[in-house]
Amino acid sequence: MEVMRVLHMNKGNGENSYAKNSTVQSNIISLGRRVMDEALKKLMISNSEISSIGIADLGCSSGPNSLLSITNIIDTIQNLCPDLDRPVPELRVSLNDLPSNDFNYIFASLPEFYNRLNNKKEGLGPARGGGESCFVSAVPGSFYGRLFPRRSLHFVHSSSSLHWLSQVPCGEAEKEDGVNKADLDNVGKIYISKTSPKSAHKAYALQFETDFSVFLRSRSEELVPGGRMVLSFLGRSSQDPTTEESCYQWELLAQALMSMAKEGIIEEETIDAFNAPYYAASSEELIMVIEKEGSFSVDRLEISPVDWEGGSISEESYDQVVRSKPQALASGRRVAGTIRAVVEPMLKPTFGENVMDELFERYAKIVGEYFYVKTPRYAIVIVSLVRTG
Amino acid sequence: MEVMRVLHMNKGNGENSYAKNSTVQSNIISLGRRVMDEALKKLMISNSEISSIGIADLGCSSGPNSLLSITNIIDTIQNLCPDLDRPVPELRVSLNDLPSNDFNYIFASLPEFYNRLNNKKEGLGPARGGGESCFVSAVPGSFYGRLFPRRSLHFVHSSSSLHWLSQVPCGEAEKEDGVNKADLDNVGKIYISKTSPKSAHKAYALQFETDFSVFLRSRSEELVPGGRMVLSFLGRSSQDPTTEESCYQWELLAQALMSMAKEGIIEEETIDAFNAPYYAASSEELIMVIEKEGSFSVDRLEISPVDWEGGSISEESYDQVVRSKPQALASGRRVAGTIRAVVEPMLKPTFGENVMDELFERYAKIVGEYFYVKTPRYAIVIVSLVRTG
Repeated sequence: MEVMRVLHMNKGNGENSYAKNSTVQSNIISLGRRVMDEALKKLMISNSEISSIGIADLGCSSGPNSLLSITNIIDTIQNLCPDLDRPVPELRVSLNDLPSNDFNYIFASLPEFYNRLNNKKEGLGPARGGGESCFVSAVPGSFYGRLFPRRSLHFVHSSSSLHWLSQVPCGEAEKEDGVNKADLDNVGKIYISKTSPKSAHKAYALQFETDFSVFLRSRSEELVPGGRMVLSFLGRSSQDPTTEESCYQWELLAQALMSMAKEGIIEEETIDAFNAPYYAASSEELIMVIEKEGSFSVDRLEISPVDWEGGSISEESYDQVVRSKPQALASGRRVAGTIRAVVEPMLKPTFGENVMDELFERYAKIVGEYFYVKTPRYAIVIVSLVRTG
Repeated sequence: MEVMRVLHMNKGNGENSYAKNSTVQSNIISLGRRVMDEALKKLMISNSEISSIGIADLGCSSGPNSLLSITNIIDTIQNLCPDLDRPVPELRVSLNDLPSNDFNYIFASLPEFYNRLNNKKEGLGPARGGGESCFVSAVPGSFYGRLFPRRSLHFVHSSSSLHWLSQVPCGEAEKEDGVNKADLDNVGKIYISKTSPKSAHKAYALQFETDFSVFLRSRSEELVPGGRMVLSFLGRSSQDPTTEESCYQWELLAQALMSMAKEGIIEEETIDAFNAPYYAASSEELIMVIEKEGSFSVDRLEISPVDWEGGSISEESYDQVVRSKPQALASGRRVAGTIRAVVEPMLKPTFGENVMDELFERYAKIVGEYFYVKTPRYAIVIVSLVRTG
């Protein structure tokens, strides 16, 4: 699987598009807002003299969320400046995603975005040319590598992106042969599962370690000393990578695929060979990589549960939500829509476009039934980092 | 006409796409290469210490030419550096066009672009993270306004773009009413013509003056002192804006439209009311605006004739090309394809999508017949400017 080509959200504006199915991701952005605002405040206080600030949103995707993070960032900075008795600095904003992302969709809403800025604050937005202003650019490429000029950034944000790996992990045997066949002997599964061999767990953890380390190294060159990052993504609160919050969205998707294999619609071997380029890391793994890489210190690390529909849930209320069967099935359908908008482009080349409707019909039902017995949740990791040195 | 929405090349890869009909524009880029290389050499010599260079290509469009100019610029800088006994600086490259441009098309070829850079010179391209490197970003927006942060650029390039105005000029009467109705009393024509009223000439010249002045003012804030621009676009060598080289592509298009109006396929009033947001400026007009604006000095200004198929022609050979009837008609067809790829998006909303095939069939024939009697040509203005102060 060439992740660069298949890791993009469903395009356009249709029923299965990411644009129409991205409420969960929007909620995750909101969930991280407090930590982000805190980081921005610290950044502005420690850079009181600076007249131009470089900001990047990594994995901006394509939909109503694409400009949400940068809108939040700009709002926060604009609100902070009067309190700090300083003018709003020039804002150099970069939107990043893989080259296969639908950037045209984002660009179509940029004029409106600038209008809103200009209306809110006289002179902001590039057309005015006034003192304070905001300049948005797009930087297509993988964030597992350099994207920006040296020391050009002050603040990096990324939401719902860093759980995606740069490639599907490859098994030990294949590595020795020098062939990246990604055969993890992961029978009947498409991600880490209780039945996956320990070698598969290891391969996934290693791929995350490698990728996240490259991510930190790349950003360390792009951020100024004292620059900050706030990253939020799907992780896990337990050491065990096979608990529900770590992997059950994949577990149930594998169930849907296997039910189709049982009926001869797809091949079981195809499922065995397919593994998602995804990893839900624990805070221990994160901290380990951050310390080993050495360019960043952790200012804050939080893990928050959200249900699969993006709602915040407290530990206490977790098992107390009772749904009727129709409610549970409706939840299943919404969750299937959310997942489909994200993973369909990477499933299509392997399983075929023609089985996608059937697959996500089955998935919606399986998820719906699951919702009837419990409220499945993700663990959202929110980490705030400072570039040391 | 909302120029921001309709001024974009025909999208995609089809028969009428800009991608398949942009040889003329590619030839104009080649025509400006010598002047551009000279400007880059002067820039590199006068900035011998600088470790990071900001480069922008304005009006990059979407097709095989989109990365051609920046490829040329990078090649030239890479070749200059050994001669100047200095390392290749970090290259911050920005691609600009209006938000309606098909940027996705360009981004799809960026990985290959970076691979070529990396293969040519170890370490260039952002994925390597080495010392010297190149970072490409896209900046959607109108170049008749600010696009880039203050003093962030060293070199600006633009080819085949600055003959497009920010809006259709509006007549005197409408201006007094405060209504921008763009009614120039330009009966049966779609651009300046021998039969256009003098007020229409004046309105066009004034719009160009306003737009080009805003362009210079915007770039003057974005370029460092000593920064350079090389601009090439369709202009004219005569004072008279109604000579063939200034306007005949529009004159013949108006003929094609009028022939359809005569047959009742479209309304004559629609043609009268339509005016192209285009202006072919003379060198006198250019210099007048540059001197009045005051931020730039002219290092070089050249006007070169090219035929409508993009071939360079000398004054001597101009009228000596003899074509057979079939050759002339084939030329007409190619020219109609080139013009269609550029102007169809702005004609469609006014005249209707359904008449486009018919219109450009007629246009191809009219241009073909014209080619049988002479070789029509454009005057390409190439101007090299230095940011003073």
